[in-house]
Amino acid sequence: MAVVTPWEVKGTIDYGKLIKEFGVSKLDDAILKKLEKHTGPLHHLIRRKIFFAHRDLDFALQEHSKGNLFLYTGCGPSGPIHMGHASVWLFTKWLQDALDVDLWFQFTDDEKFLFKDMTYEEIQKWLYENMLDVIALGFNPRKTHFLIDTKHAGLMYPEAIKVAKRITFSTIKSAFGFTNEQNLGAIFYTSMQAVPAFLPSVIAKKTMACLIPHAIDQDPHFRVTRDVLPKLGYPKPASIQSRFLPGLEGMKDAGKLSSSTGQAIYLTDDPKTVKTKINKYAFSGGKDTIEEHRKHGGNPEIDVAYQWLMFFEEDDEKLKKIYNDYKSGKLLSGELKAILIENISAFLMQHQKKRAAAPNLVDDYIYKAK
Amino acid sequence: MAVVTPWEVKGTIDYGKLIKEFGVSKLDDAILKKLEKHTGPLHHLIRRKIFFAHRDLDFALQEHSKGNLFLYTGCGPSGPIHMGHASVWLFTKWLQDALDVDLWFQFTDDEKFLFKDMTYEEIQKWLYENMLDVIALGFNPRKTHFLIDTKHAGLMYPEAIKVAKRITFSTIKSAFGFTNEQNLGAIFYTSMQAVPAFLPSVIAKKTMACLIPHAIDQDPHFRVTRDVLPKLGYPKPASIQSRFLPGLEGMKDAGKLSSSTGQAIYLTDDPKTVKTKINKYAFSGGKDTIEEHRKHGGNPEIDVAYQWLMFFEEDDEKLKKIYNDYKSGKLLSGELKAILIENISAFLMQHQKKRAAAPNLVDDYIYKAK
Repeated sequence: MAVVTPWEVKGTIDYGKLIKEFGVSKLDDAILKKLEKHTGPLHHLIRRKIFFAHRDLDFALQEHSKGNLFLYTGCGPSGPIHMGHASVWLFTKWLQDALDVDLWFQFTDDEKFLFKDMTYEEIQKWLYENMLDVIALGFNPRKTHFLIDTKHAGLMYPEAIKVAKRITFSTIKSAFGFTNEQNLGAIFYTSMQAVPAFLPSVIAKKTMACLIPHAIDQDPHFRVTRDVLPKLGYPKPASIQSRFLPGLEGMKDAGKLSSSTGQAIYLTDDPKTVKTKINKYAFSGGKDTIEEHRKHGGNPEIDVAYQWLMFFEEDDEKLKKIYNDYKSGKLLSGELKAILIENISAFLMQHQKKRAAAPNLVDDYIYKAK
Repeated sequence: MAVVTPWEVKGTIDYGKLIKEFGVSKLDDAILKKLEKHTGPLHHLIRRKIFFAHRDLDFALQEHSKGNLFLYTGCGPSGPIHMGHASVWLFTKWLQDALDVDLWFQFTDDEKFLFKDMTYEEIQKWLYENMLDVIALGFNPRKTHFLIDTKHAGLMYPEAIKVAKRITFSTIKSAFGFTNEQNLGAIFYTSMQAVPAFLPSVIAKKTMACLIPHAIDQDPHFRVTRDVLPKLGYPKPASIQSRFLPGLEGMKDAGKLSSSTGQAIYLTDDPKTVKTKINKYAFSGGKDTIEEHRKHGGNPEIDVAYQWLMFFEEDDEKLKKIYNDYKSGKLLSGELKAILIENISAFLMQHQKKRAAAPNLVDDYIYKAK
């Protein structure tokens, strides 16, 4: 059985089933057409339905027309950033630029401290490292505001308790599968994750709409948030959900790309490491021998290199050709992996250059109350 | 059956039994002698064992000798301050002056918002009003630091989550009798109440000892705090517990003097109100007729006016004479009430004068990080 919670993702995920279970709406062509009117040509991650579901996107777009929308996404700092995180944020950056709106970027250092067996200092180290990666992705510095739960607690805790007062332990027990052995901070935490969905309204002193691009595992938080916010006089936050980048080792247990299993590619990996990891771990949909492959072709549906290219190769034509060539047997598994290695390495080389310049920019991105 | 929790006190309280149940130590003559060496002549509230119990007071005094002690007490702002609150803080002021130490005064506006059916704005109003009363009690402005949970959350929340990580819901379920219907903020809250017991050590960058004067109902919080702090590298906070000022209407159900029942005298009551309340409500230990009273005398043990004088008449000789005169029948109930009215009115007249000047001082008392 698949498990999808903010703290654990495992098993084979049936996204169609998840849509029903979570009660999100499928991103159908009608809503994508509406979105396109606001953004111009759609990002490949949404064209390809990797962002596959939403809540109230129509409402968010209506509010966008009135100049009344902001974006909110986040990062839980407990390890290096991997390509799965990056894909969600690259889409978020596109969406921010295309809609020309403010983005509130929450760093949940309290969450990671409370849920992981790591010290406060370790989390603070990852917070800093992760901020460098987020900055290097190129978010508009004038319209992007980092909210760090511990650093901005003066601003956030007074709002979080207003949320917390409306949620019982019973509710989050069923929403998150918590037990009585959960620690008090972990129990409180979802209230902090709710805050950026309405803090910009508090700051702007007017009620604004919020749109949250996120990986589907975070949905239980926002389901709770959506129940509470109208009681506080704010609209339910809209959201748009992505599926997970599969782990390198395979589609079978295609849970979230986990940073703890060694199957991930990190934004700080050098080209040699990228090459080694992909060649060594990336599960292949090719045949056992070149002869067989040439004859029967490979299976792109279970080939991790191909699946990753769906996330990271922007050019639809190029991707289609890869698909056809691989399926027909013209393209070998090693050649397909080489295409992915080339793609990821080129991205990371650029990224790491920008990351090296990021330390000077950290302070500019951190939100400062006026 | 008596109930004593931080949020409910009712029934006839057997303080001897409470000492055993809570696991506090009786304030015996040996420890009072030790205390006297540090403070000089003891305050009447401790001479009379109204402060009746403690935890680790000896340790606190040892640390005081090394210049390594601070005091911590608090106020939950959800209504006007009554004489019961005042008694604890008058003792605290004496202790601060006598020991010449810093006092951290926590205003738990988050707690009251989370536990009461009151709006955030109502609580903020009471916060301000209560601060005026605390200031008017005359705490040393150079050594007294107000910590307001919502205003100082930037400082407190990062420390509170370190406490919260060490406490499970199971633990506070049994410590406070919580159910699954408790809200998330109420569940988290005890972590915030723990913070002033070690925040001064964080700020001073050295490990200091903490002594908490408080009414006995707050002990469950500090029991939990005492379990956690050594795990974070801080000593267990010492504490000293008072019994409750009985409600005007009687000793039988001598729970905490409640501000919700109309039996309390508030620090903002005018002399006429004080007179009316005491004459109308104060339960008398006198006899039904003057003749009987003269013949058999009154019973000071159940007479609220006398019990209140034990809290507020500093002069032992005078109090003893009142006791004897009342017991012998020489002093009538009305006369005893008149003594109390005189005492409280004189105190309140002074207090209200100082309170009128307090608005200008609020900012001086609120802690500012250096």
